[in-house]
This record gives sequence, C-alpha cells and structure tokens, in this order.
Amino acid sequence: MDTKQVGEKLVSLCSQGKNMDAINSLYSKDIVSVEAHGTPEMPAEMRGIDKIRGKNQWWNKNHEVHSAKVEGPFPHKDRFAVKFHFEVTPKSGPQKGKRFAMDEVGIYTVKDGKIVREEFFYSM
Amino acid sequence: MDTKQVGEKLVSLCSQGKNMDAINSLYSKDIVSVEAHGTPEMPAEMRGIDKIRGKNQWWNKNHEVHSAKVEGPFPHKDRFAVKFHFEVTPKSGPQKGKRFAMDEVGIYTVKDGKIVREEFFYSM
Repeated sequence: MDTKQVGEKLVSLCSQGKNMDAINSLYSKDIVSVEAHGTPEMPAEMRGIDKIRGKNQWWNKNHEVHSAKVEGPFPHKDRFAVKFHFEVTPKSGPQKGKRFAMDEVGIYTVKDGKIVREEFFYSM
Repeated sequence: MDTKQVGEKLVSLCSQGKNMDAINSLYSKDIVSVEAHGTPEMPAEMRGIDKIRGKNQWWNKNHEVHSAKVEGPFPHKDRFAVKFHFEVTPKSGPQKGKRFAMDEVGIYTVKDGKIVREEFFYSM
C-alpha cells in the first residue's frame, strides 16, 4: 500500500472506532508515537507497538467515546494528516463524568507500507 | 510570541482572508514553503518571503474564494497544525469557472517567534 492507501485504511477503521485494528494491521512494530504533552505516568514519546497498544487500551478503558469524526487522509509525500473530532466523557481522573469535545490533528509517517511514526497536535 | 500565539494570530488573519498580512507579520524572511505537489511552473518547495508572497499573489489573482473555514491552531512543541476548508472557483486554467471544495492541513514550524517552515497536506 502507498501512503495514501494506508491513510484511507486508517481513516476508515478509526471512523468505525476500530483503532486497535488499525494498529494491528497498519503499524510497524517499531512505531514511535509522540503526544503534544506528556505526564509522569504517560511520557510524550513512546516506542514499540506494545506500548502503543497499551496507550490505546488505557484510552479506551478511561473514556466513553460518544462520537468520532475523522477527516482525511491529507497526503504529503511519505506522510499524511488526519483531523479528529471526538466527543468524550472521562471515566476516571479529575475530569471524570465531564463531557468535552476534543479536536486534534495526527501526522503519520509511512515507510514500506507501514506507519512508523505518529505525532498528535492539540491544545490542552 | 510563543508557538501557540503565532498560531492563533495566523488563524485569526487567515479566517478574515488576510493571508498577506499573516505573511508580512508572522513569517521569517527565510521561510521555506512546501506543497504536497509541484508543477513545472510552481515547484513544490519555495524559499524566501518574496517567493511566498508571489505564490500567495498568484493564488489570490487566479481564484475566487467564496468561503474559508480555518480551524486551529493545534500545537505540538515548536510546530502547530491548521485545518483549512475553502470553497473556490478558479479564474484561469483548465478548471476555470468550476467551483470546488478544498480541504487541507498546514503544519507550521516556529523559531524565535516567526514561522520558518510551512508544509501543506492535501489530495489532488
């Protein structure tokens, strides 16, 4: 698959809430994932598909996702961008029970048909 | 201004159609601008604020912009993302007179309070 095809598949799966399927089928085992912000428990940069699966499981376990709007992919050479809009309610932590809207942009780098890097752009 | 403040000003000016004001006030003179695709007349990568002003003038001269929706900024360290949605009609070329919608993501890099690089992500 070329960069655009990888992006189309990612957008299709994430639109259906199948984020773990996207990780399993599209991500390199050496994936690097970079958030805009880190915390002591959740560093901004994580490496390796097991860490990224763990981050995704943590997200799914701790958030009720009411809706997800996924726009893209927007290709640029070996990268593509995706725009996400989520309506979520945290199930734990200081924001527990408070529904909010979350907008972010993901930039994905593709090598040999697999996603090797993802970077998330958002305000806290 | 920090990265987020530069992004907020860019989004504010572009939302009002004041793209040239954004270039004049926020761009480094050594700005590098990279499109997803180039043509023989319009290379994908251009350098220097005069070239970028020229590209912008070409765009303004050759397109009627009916509406612009500008979302962001979405910061990530020294970069920020912006999502654009334009409704435009080309005034020249093979698509002359054919109104279309254009969605793209811009990724901007900020150094010392100025935008030093912009990269545009979109499908043709």
